[in-house]
Amino acid sequence: MEGYVPGEQPQDRRYIKLNTNENPYPPSPRVLEALRQAVTDDLRLYPDPSARDLRTKAADVYGVSPDQIVAGNGSDDLLAMLFRACIDAGTSPEVAYPVPTYSLYDTLAQIQGTSPKTVPFDPDFTLPVEALLAAGARLNLICNPNSPSGTLTPVSTIADFARRAKGLVVVDEAYVDFARETALSLLGSCPNVVVLRTFSKSFSLAGMRIGLAFGSREVIAQLNKVKDSYNLDRLSLVAARAALDDLPWMNANVQTIREARTALAHDLAELGFRIPPSEANFLFATHAKLGGADLYRGLRARGILVRHFATPALSDGLRITVGTREQNGALVTALRTLSS
Amino acid sequence: MEGYVPGEQPQDRRYIKLNTNENPYPPSPRVLEALRQAVTDDLRLYPDPSARDLRTKAADVYGVSPDQIVAGNGSDDLLAMLFRACIDAGTSPEVAYPVPTYSLYDTLAQIQGTSPKTVPFDPDFTLPVEALLAAGARLNLICNPNSPSGTLTPVSTIADFARRAKGLVVVDEAYVDFARETALSLLGSCPNVVVLRTFSKSFSLAGMRIGLAFGSREVIAQLNKVKDSYNLDRLSLVAARAALDDLPWMNANVQTIREARTALAHDLAELGFRIPPSEANFLFATHAKLGGADLYRGLRARGILVRHFATPALSDGLRITVGTREQNGALVTALRTLSS
Repeated sequence: MEGYVPGEQPQDRRYIKLNTNENPYPPSPRVLEALRQAVTDDLRLYPDPSARDLRTKAADVYGVSPDQIVAGNGSDDLLAMLFRACIDAGTSPEVAYPVPTYSLYDTLAQIQGTSPKTVPFDPDFTLPVEALLAAGARLNLICNPNSPSGTLTPVSTIADFARRAKGLVVVDEAYVDFARETALSLLGSCPNVVVLRTFSKSFSLAGMRIGLAFGSREVIAQLNKVKDSYNLDRLSLVAARAALDDLPWMNANVQTIREARTALAHDLAELGFRIPPSEANFLFATHAKLGGADLYRGLRARGILVRHFATPALSDGLRITVGTREQNGALVTALRTLSS
Repeated sequence: MEGYVPGEQPQDRRYIKLNTNENPYPPSPRVLEALRQAVTDDLRLYPDPSARDLRTKAADVYGVSPDQIVAGNGSDDLLAMLFRACIDAGTSPEVAYPVPTYSLYDTLAQIQGTSPKTVPFDPDFTLPVEALLAAGARLNLICNPNSPSGTLTPVSTIADFARRAKGLVVVDEAYVDFARETALSLLGSCPNVVVLRTFSKSFSLAGMRIGLAFGSREVIAQLNKVKDSYNLDRLSLVAARAALDDLPWMNANVQTIREARTALAHDLAELGFRIPPSEANFLFATHAKLGGADLYRGLRARGILVRHFATPALSDGLRITVGTREQNGALVTALRTLSS
């Protein structure tokens, strides 16, 4: 099997990095200050395996109970826990999801020894509800907003799907702070819904590996059984707590990125790119004439990294992270040269 | 299934914590300084998924090639990777190990849906080589020094076992810096040997979750395929690198703990405890007359935490982390009261 291939993290030079959906703005100064304060001799001691302080704060922020939350070493860790908890190799299909989407789902299925049932999105990225229901999987994954398309499935559609689905419905909301609505509101009425969040995007903490899963008490209790005991280190716990203590910082950055997203989408459309409506911090842009691979290489040579996926369904396009206005301007200038 | 149960991490009061084998001495000041320097806006960026800088330094320190190393979010993460890479649910036994040992192995086997073949240690904790060979497992685990016994299997015995074993032989050396020899020397001659290390004990960094696995290039390449891409955060990578840059700090603490171990073992023997010879930073102490559960409760009431395992093979004894001289003195005083 092949492992998951993350976006490039080159060390050789300083690129304009628009390839891994990092936030162009720094974490809250309160996060950095809390981290500095936490660098003490106490690092000799194990972290709290239950992440109690973080879960208590998150419960308050998101309006759920602390025992409806489990913390992960990034949401990738939470996804791995969900696969471990749900998949009994043998009976197929155990996991189903619409594609194209986050390719880690394929990798996790392979690791767990199961063949996923993948269902193509409609051309406009409408969720293929009936086909997913027909799959009857124990574990259904919906990346929402979806990567790499950036499109959002309305929560009402997810609610309809979850009420009719037999298995767990995991809504991977890595990018949801950039979108107009969240599935967290379904937790009360749909006990089979699990919502995943990450601090890597909106909270500018990709370097600290923090994710949260929200679900029913029963589901969270099962996930705790397959969790690495000490999956978050002391400093990640501190950073996450401090980030939740400064929501205005995150919200202000999100608002700036949303505005830049609108402007960038407009500029790219003028250059001949088609872009599905994005509710994430990236755009999936396909040019009418120029191929994705050529554009990727051309941008790279000009010091700009974007994400190109070599799979047939995606190779025509580029996934472009929304950066600062300056970064986006440099990207547009480079694309103008490449497309002229 | 039941999840792994870690040692208590109580928040209610400051105990003398001799229950989870943490180092009583702080991490190197160079580690703390490096961490403070690394608390920057760059935390918005993903960490290096390949941990290249850390692996390069570790390769230099331990005399192997960087591509013979993979870094883990604690050695628990590395153990989970080994189970994921080796276990195909169905054919049994796929994993074998001598018991009593680190109970996480049981949990990981359960999570991966396999029944481990457990072979009792001889009463003097000699490795049951022939019985393990007879099991013929794909994955063999030897915690060495073993927890909770503290005993060391000689590397020559492990070499003999590894040469005759068909499967992988994982030597979990979490405590080896406190012992007289390491199985790292076998990597050149035994391609089926994997050695695990952690920074939680000798390097005083339990709070940062750092482990390393050493093996053949082929085995390490397989482990990389089942690794969470970004399993170590930026600060853990920095802490690990800085810890390897200050080996004298670690070695001095280890030497102090070894001397305290000898003194503590002597004092406990005088109180009527039997203790297998320990090469770790803990002692497994069994009293001739007093039960482990009673002693555990008596110590807890006196503000001292030790580890008591409720399983039949271990419930008579206590696993006691070697602390500072002052902590060990308080323990001996409390045990003298409890046993008089």
